[in-house]
Amino acid sequence: MKIALMMENSQAGKNPTVLEQLNKVATPLKHDVFNVGMSDENDHHLTYIHLGIMASLLINSKAVDFVIAGCGTGQGAMMSLNLHPGVYCGYCLDPSDAFLFNQINNGNALALAFAKGFGWGAELNLEYIFEKALTGERGAGYPIERKAPQVANAGILSEVKAAVLKDNYLDILKSIDPSLVKTAVSGERFQTCFFDNCQDDELANYVKSLIS
Amino acid sequence: MKIALMMENSQAGKNPTVLEQLNKVATPLKHDVFNVGMSDENDHHLTYIHLGIMASLLINSKAVDFVIAGCGTGQGAMMSLNLHPGVYCGYCLDPSDAFLFNQINNGNALALAFAKGFGWGAELNLEYIFEKALTGERGAGYPIERKAPQVANAGILSEVKAAVLKDNYLDILKSIDPSLVKTAVSGERFQTCFFDNCQDDELANYVKSLIS
Amino acid sequence: MKIALMMENSQAGKNPTVLEQLNKVATPLKHDVFNVGMSDENDHHLTYIHLGIMASLLINSKAVDFVIAGCGTGQGAMMSLNLHPGVYCGYCLDPSDAFLFNQINNGNALALAFAKGFGWGAELNLEYIFEKALTGERGAGYPIERKAPQVANAGILSEVKAAVLKDNYLDILKSIDPSLVKTAVSGERFQTCFFDNCQDDELANYVKSLIS
Amino acid sequence: MKIALMMENSQAGKNPTVLEQLNKVATPLKHDVFNVGMSDENDHHLTYIHLGIMASLLINSKAVDFVIAGCGTGQGAMMSLNLHPGVYCGYCLDPSDAFLFNQINNGNALALAFAKGFGWGAELNLEYIFEKALTGERGAGYPIERKAPQVANAGILSEVKAAVLKDNYLDILKSIDPSLVKTAVSGERFQTCFFDNCQDDELANYVKSLIS
Repeated sequence: MKIALMMENSQAGKNPTVLEQLNKVATPLKHDVFNVGMSDENDHHLTYIHLGIMASLLINSKAVDFVIAGCGTGQGAMMSLNLHPGVYCGYCLDPSDAFLFNQINNGNALALAFAKGFGWGAELNLEYIFEKALTGERGAGYPIERKAPQVANAGILSEVKAAVLKDNYLDILKSIDPSLVKTAVSGERFQTCFFDNCQDDELANYVKSLIS
Repeated sequence: MKIALMMENSQAGKNPTVLEQLNKVATPLKHDVFNVGMSDENDHHLTYIHLGIMASLLINSKAVDFVIAGCGTGQGAMMSLNLHPGVYCGYCLDPSDAFLFNQINNGNALALAFAKGFGWGAELNLEYIFEKALTGERGAGYPIERKAPQVANAGILSEVKAAVLKDNYLDILKSIDPSLVKTAVSGERFQTCFFDNCQDDELANYVKSLIS
Repeated sequence: MKIALMMENSQAGKNPTVLEQLNKVATPLKHDVFNVGMSDENDHHLTYIHLGIMASLLINSKAVDFVIAGCGTGQGAMMSLNLHPGVYCGYCLDPSDAFLFNQINNGNALALAFAKGFGWGAELNLEYIFEKALTGERGAGYPIERKAPQVANAGILSEVKAAVLKDNYLDILKSIDPSLVKTAVSGERFQTCFFDNCQDDELANYVKSLIS
Repeated sequence: MKIALMMENSQAGKNPTVLEQLNKVATPLKHDVFNVGMSDENDHHLTYIHLGIMASLLINSKAVDFVIAGCGTGQGAMMSLNLHPGVYCGYCLDPSDAFLFNQINNGNALALAFAKGFGWGAELNLEYIFEKALTGERGAGYPIERKAPQVANAGILSEVKAAVLKDNYLDILKSIDPSLVKTAVSGERFQTCFFDNCQDDELANYVKSLIS
């Protein structure tokens, strides 16, 4: 899988710690990690609003398969990512949350708390969450005898979400305040990840038009 | 506040326990509680998809001010509620999650886990979560010196959400598979809560047309 | 109740935060709080070993009724307190731990984690733990229909503990390396609490002999 | 390592689940698992008091290296095991507790909660706890630069514990109400584990004398 890690201003100083744990788990599993948000407190300023837009662009362009996001409590990131088309973002405080979300909901993003409960052992908890989030089968149901209704509900969720949103992805993107989108795509690491992996030329052209 | 509790099929048997804890906390605080989902395993069958539609109707018609929802892990309910206009649903595993979500994100719904981690002490944890969710000031910021950016971000979140969704609430509702909406509004306790408190005639008429 | 708070070197800088939360809960409940451990990182150096000895002296002299202790994870404090006669120390990570320990085990001390999981919301979690630890009936059983065996087991626990320990409290105390005891009793706040409230003259005299 | 799992009456029905998770982790790591407590609700009746005596016998005879115990909340088991000579029992609610206890305290037993918080995902949490409890280096310190004081404190803890207890292990054991010890050693699986692995003839003879 291609995995994007994205962090915002309030916890940007922890990016090296989170990235280290993510690489520790993802590298032996042959996943590619892209650190597309803030890398330290002096990096260009992003909020959880921008993270949602970044996740939306990366997922809908198929530039990445999975997003790890977060903020102080993770709740802002979780709501921000979930409002966008095609992004299904779970919320994880412990490793079994990650496993259960994979098996039951089979989404493509996780929001984590990088300040709430983040003390001694926080980097361990991250490591264990990543182990369970990035390993093994997905969508197998939990308990497994409930796989059928769980898979069905995940499908209905995506239909309802598609129904309430505007119809065309590019139209949706253009409906958002362009200054927000512009900031969201302004990072060099984001741009490298996006342009190297984007599978939608129209979308790539639109993003290019914003940053030129 | 008017508070709706809504539970789906997988944990419906726990509705009396959850309702008891909610009333224990809400009644002395003069909140009104409406138990609008399944009340036991034999009640009419609802999934977290229906809970999202129910929350959407109750919040957007101003029939209730706050929604307590949940499912086995709470993640399905959280994603389902958050896709609808005007619904801002946090995810709570412990009491401080509830407090922080109130202060930082100031949303109008919570998704809880009614099976994950639900053992001895689960009803205590619910009681303590409700205490923190339903008491005190909201949107005060946490830490309080970060109130200004947190309030600003909550406002921007609602603007971005409005931008990506279809424009008119009734159009959005009509875009959803009517059989899902019909099931969502089929419960007697839901209907009592909705029709007694709905502040939007057009919406009330549409719901009436579905159930007649 | 008379309640002693005792913290060791690794987390001494958090003493003002913990003390504030404890007072916030204990004062309206008319409990007296004694801050007998380190108050900051420059205070005289105590480890969880000393906390155990301090708790032992305060509990066995009836100087206090309850002890709140802790260290980085709380596990060292928990084992250190529990090895002493008459000290029954639970371990709490969340509020329901505190409630359950009161109802089932009815001990007289709690060990808390002041670094593990200690991030945003940690002071809230402390407040909620103290609310549940210091309020309401104790030893009522959980679930309540299991009160009889739970009370019986707590009694047998104290008998077994008494059986394996040396017979006389002062002999036990004198068996411990005197330099450890001397450091444990060296703090001014500890001495004020101990000498003002000690109900055992022989014990008071022994402690006096160590510090003179 | 030789690992004993011991469960008491209140949660005996969960023994197959816990044993399955323990074997899943321990077998590939070449640890030997002995299921020496209750295996179901109809097995001979043990309380957390008996678990403490069993752990004491197995650890002090070097029949096993590590003990996994527990009860409803785990607090009774934790206090009961910790009162015995040579037993150093941590308390674990999540995987990082297990890791930190190994690195900082390097004890030889863990008490787990088999009812508190035990819902969906509980068997996953057990698996992840066992992974961290039974893998890797021990006593390495956490954070690692604090290894020296942490190892020193663990050593002092054992000295203080030895000082307060009666001097001779067999005398200590004989001080405990013999009917409790007799029940503690009455299980067939316990006896097989103990007699097959006990490295202290005097102790083995005393236990034999109780059951003949």
